[in-house]
Amino acid sequence: MLIASTIGIAYDVLRWEERALISAFKSLGVNPLLIHVKSEPIILTTNNVLEGSVILQRCMSNYLARASTEALEGLGARVINSAEAIAKCSDKLWTASILMRHGIPIPKVAVAFSTEGVIKVVNEFGYPSVIKPISGSWGRLVSLVRDEEELRTVMEHRSYLPGQNSKVHLVQEFIRKPGRDLRVFVVGGEVVTAIYRVSNHWITNTARGGKAVPAKVDDELKELVIKTAEVLGAEFVGIDVFEDPSRGYLIDEVNPVPEFKRTVAATGYDLPRKVAEYLISLVRR
Amino acid sequence: MLIASTIGIAYDVLRWEERALISAFKSLGVNPLLIHVKSEPIILTTNNVLEGSVILQRCMSNYLARASTEALEGLGARVINSAEAIAKCSDKLWTASILMRHGIPIPKVAVAFSTEGVIKVVNEFGYPSVIKPISGSWGRLVSLVRDEEELRTVMEHRSYLPGQNSKVHLVQEFIRKPGRDLRVFVVGGEVVTAIYRVSNHWITNTARGGKAVPAKVDDELKELVIKTAEVLGAEFVGIDVFEDPSRGYLIDEVNPVPEFKRTVAATGYDLPRKVAEYLISLVRR
Amino acid sequence: MLIASTIGIAYDVLRWEERALISAFKSLGVNPLLIHVKSEPIILTTNNVLEGSVILQRCMSNYLARASTEALEGLGARVINSAEAIAKCSDKLWTASILMRHGIPIPKVAVAFSTEGVIKVVNEFGYPSVIKPISGSWGRLVSLVRDEEELRTVMEHRSYLPGQNSKVHLVQEFIRKPGRDLRVFVVGGEVVTAIYRVSNHWITNTARGGKAVPAKVDDELKELVIKTAEVLGAEFVGIDVFEDPSRGYLIDEVNPVPEFKRTVAATGYDLPRKVAEYLISLVRR
Amino acid sequence: MLIASTIGIAYDVLRWEERALISAFKSLGVNPLLIHVKSEPIILTTNNVLEGSVILQRCMSNYLARASTEALEGLGARVINSAEAIAKCSDKLWTASILMRHGIPIPKVAVAFSTEGVIKVVNEFGYPSVIKPISGSWGRLVSLVRDEEELRTVMEHRSYLPGQNSKVHLVQEFIRKPGRDLRVFVVGGEVVTAIYRVSNHWITNTARGGKAVPAKVDDELKELVIKTAEVLGAEFVGIDVFEDPSRGYLIDEVNPVPEFKRTVAATGYDLPRKVAEYLISLVRR
Repeated sequence: MLIASTIGIAYDVLRWEERALISAFKSLGVNPLLIHVKSEPIILTTNNVLEGSVILQRCMSNYLARASTEALEGLGARVINSAEAIAKCSDKLWTASILMRHGIPIPKVAVAFSTEGVIKVVNEFGYPSVIKPISGSWGRLVSLVRDEEELRTVMEHRSYLPGQNSKVHLVQEFIRKPGRDLRVFVVGGEVVTAIYRVSNHWITNTARGGKAVPAKVDDELKELVIKTAEVLGAEFVGIDVFEDPSRGYLIDEVNPVPEFKRTVAATGYDLPRKVAEYLISLVRR
Repeated sequence: MLIASTIGIAYDVLRWEERALISAFKSLGVNPLLIHVKSEPIILTTNNVLEGSVILQRCMSNYLARASTEALEGLGARVINSAEAIAKCSDKLWTASILMRHGIPIPKVAVAFSTEGVIKVVNEFGYPSVIKPISGSWGRLVSLVRDEEELRTVMEHRSYLPGQNSKVHLVQEFIRKPGRDLRVFVVGGEVVTAIYRVSNHWITNTARGGKAVPAKVDDELKELVIKTAEVLGAEFVGIDVFEDPSRGYLIDEVNPVPEFKRTVAATGYDLPRKVAEYLISLVRR
Repeated sequence: MLIASTIGIAYDVLRWEERALISAFKSLGVNPLLIHVKSEPIILTTNNVLEGSVILQRCMSNYLARASTEALEGLGARVINSAEAIAKCSDKLWTASILMRHGIPIPKVAVAFSTEGVIKVVNEFGYPSVIKPISGSWGRLVSLVRDEEELRTVMEHRSYLPGQNSKVHLVQEFIRKPGRDLRVFVVGGEVVTAIYRVSNHWITNTARGGKAVPAKVDDELKELVIKTAEVLGAEFVGIDVFEDPSRGYLIDEVNPVPEFKRTVAATGYDLPRKVAEYLISLVRR
Repeated sequence: MLIASTIGIAYDVLRWEERALISAFKSLGVNPLLIHVKSEPIILTTNNVLEGSVILQRCMSNYLARASTEALEGLGARVINSAEAIAKCSDKLWTASILMRHGIPIPKVAVAFSTEGVIKVVNEFGYPSVIKPISGSWGRLVSLVRDEEELRTVMEHRSYLPGQNSKVHLVQEFIRKPGRDLRVFVVGGEVVTAIYRVSNHWITNTARGGKAVPAKVDDELKELVIKTAEVLGAEFVGIDVFEDPSRGYLIDEVNPVPEFKRTVAATGYDLPRKVAEYLISLVRR
């Protein structure tokens, strides 16, 4: 059973990130309650048992992050990020929709529900284009299609995938990035650190072999990512940004449970301490 | 391509409900734009092309309802229900969490991520208990488990289901309903009609053979369901309510794209007209 | 319940083929027992109730064809094709293995169980190569990979497919066919008719738009396909044959429940009557 | 690349069984070629490269066992068990069909393709009955249904399983076993050892906690299991046998890649040596 506690960390796997966060909390005099989400059910029967608690959501699995955040909020906890922010960021179409509505520049994107629909979109966006799932991290199933043969191969495979992947298709224009993209970290409405992910491959994800290099964040980008986090209601996020040769910064995706091992290694910035301080400030408020 | 329009209906299948809604709009002098979601991609490139539009979301498939609502909102439309309300109502754990946090009575519920976790919960709730998916309509995969043998059978099968169903398990106490439950319709913050769903089976869903009978909604229930819709940000919903012998009304689930053919047949209430009037009032505002 | 009968047809969908077969039987004075496999369970409790019967297996779904053939054989029926022949022909690796062992020429083929394994094979076969599932008809999930990027896209998608498709990968060299391939029909050890499937697309399947043209079968091919059917134990099959510029005929796949509407239209050959006569001859023997 | 070798073991996981087999071969002066199936593709291009080899198939995963056996046979090897025997034993309906046709006593069994079909069968067999998949080891998804409510729960879940499990349903009468069943091992047409699997649970599988106790095999059973292995073309199998109070021995399932750690522990019989000797005898023949 969970008991009331000031600060907690919900997690499934103890990666470098989670261990660094625990150390950071401890060095600040806080011994966080560790909630190993997978092993314990969360029972929503005792009203407000977590009222006043602040819990950092660190589950690697998106479904665990979402479900445990919802349950912990039901018990009265404030979870960083909130269930609403996680839901919005985990759904790439929803993210795009919200950013677009708030005038934040994003790559051209469309949703289609059939192969014919995808072909229509790509005929408008041009080859190559990118087909991707509505949810998913680490570039999973993000596919470049360079001609109609390849598009049809991808779509036929998608039609046999389980779940919504077989039915909902996100199409994104291909951005001719300068061999890199940006990942910017926002904590509590503040830009704290950023890296370039440099790669020859069109997917620059560091988990896929992209190299992390410290990046400077100019005022334009700063304003953009702060607004992005704000309209999504997110307090601690890693924001992926493309640099388009003509249009400039475009917000691609927002990760609501970001990994940051390589960022810390590349920049030397003590992100775990910053996050810990932010959570502690929320409790003390 | 979608063009700006005052009032629209997004749909996938034209059921009795959608045809009745179209007729209702027409009888009120409005010819709604019909958006057959499945056949056309929605491209998020033209800012605000749907600004000022109000669109009723009627897709039967939850994934289509969610994705098309997000996309239409991205183009500037106001969609009833909003992407946020649909997301909250489509996730039964999230619904429970929000209702609980707002002090609205619900059945005991827990989330577990393993068979052992489910057994722990059921040992607390007692047999029989109900295991159900986090999302899904028409009572799909909602299972009564009457002893541990049956619980293990259900859990073993769940472990082979695709997607999050194999990993996230919602457990709900079994409510000894008086052979019926309630479905109450709320439109624009107003309780408009309600039925009892009467059945000998513990799942009283009319789609599963439950019989629809007109129901009176007393002040207590009225207040409860209006607050339920409000805290979920939902404007047109069907709310399932249990009557617990000792605790009284308990909110079970909230359907953000409700079917209502049997309700109209049982009550004679012109729900399609009411919904049409509500949408028209939003445009004229 | 099934009762003893001389001649039967097991089917799931009544296509043109099945209707033509029924007519053929009737014109030969036989009223075949129609076994709609999907709607009736087959209970293996009455020994030999179908002893002496000959049943033509015509289920479109491979799983229905296999399971119903096994069950009908359990009741004593002779099924054309036998469970063993259907199992061997439905598994493209097994087909290749048997043909190879009997010295029948086939395209180069390999089985791999990982992306790295597939890359090794393709490095040997060269680009383009073909990745395909071990089972499946109508060219389903048969993919041409033209470079490593495309290979990795296909393999990533395969890794998320349900069932063995995510784990067992058949790799076949790409045959530079002269814009056509052959489909030859064998009934009871006799070559009865054949078509070219002419197409600009590398998948020449008529179900995918290939055009059917009557084909002559020379003695070399005749011997090859008769031996193919024989070593697979198959009595009525459609055999797909490639013409390799240098190596000549290569047996690609063998369909144990072949469609033949377009073949009959293109050749005028009365294949349904031939099949009916063959089955009748088996009963009278 | 695989090279010719006299004796080999194809495996995926090195369990106790595989290590014991390797030791047994070595103690008999044979150093078996170890084929780690998962890591290496098998390319079917060099005719007869494995002619004269005898390979023991020990893959734990059924799909790996089947595919690698087919491929190795394509290269000329004799595999124990053959692809044909593995295919027949891995398909519980096919096994039952073959045994029934050869007059070997089995439990009542039926195949159905819909919930209504399953209900028809169970109405004939009576409650409780057993619903199981056509393939699968370790009692996976084998379900006891004690009333129609439980049957419908199981069938609803089956309808959402991926692959043929959602469509093909094996129904077996429930045998009131005397708290145990038998597992008998046959090697090269000879009964070599046997255990009772004793359990209070209706699934007596040792992998599920059943206790292994040495068993005597009387002449009736000996004859039965030898004939069972023979009609399935299997050379090394573990055969599960029920003792029905009135009908006596009934053959339930035949495992073509049997585990035997607990059998060796319970009986002290050196099964690995026996198997090794059998394979060596095949090469020397």
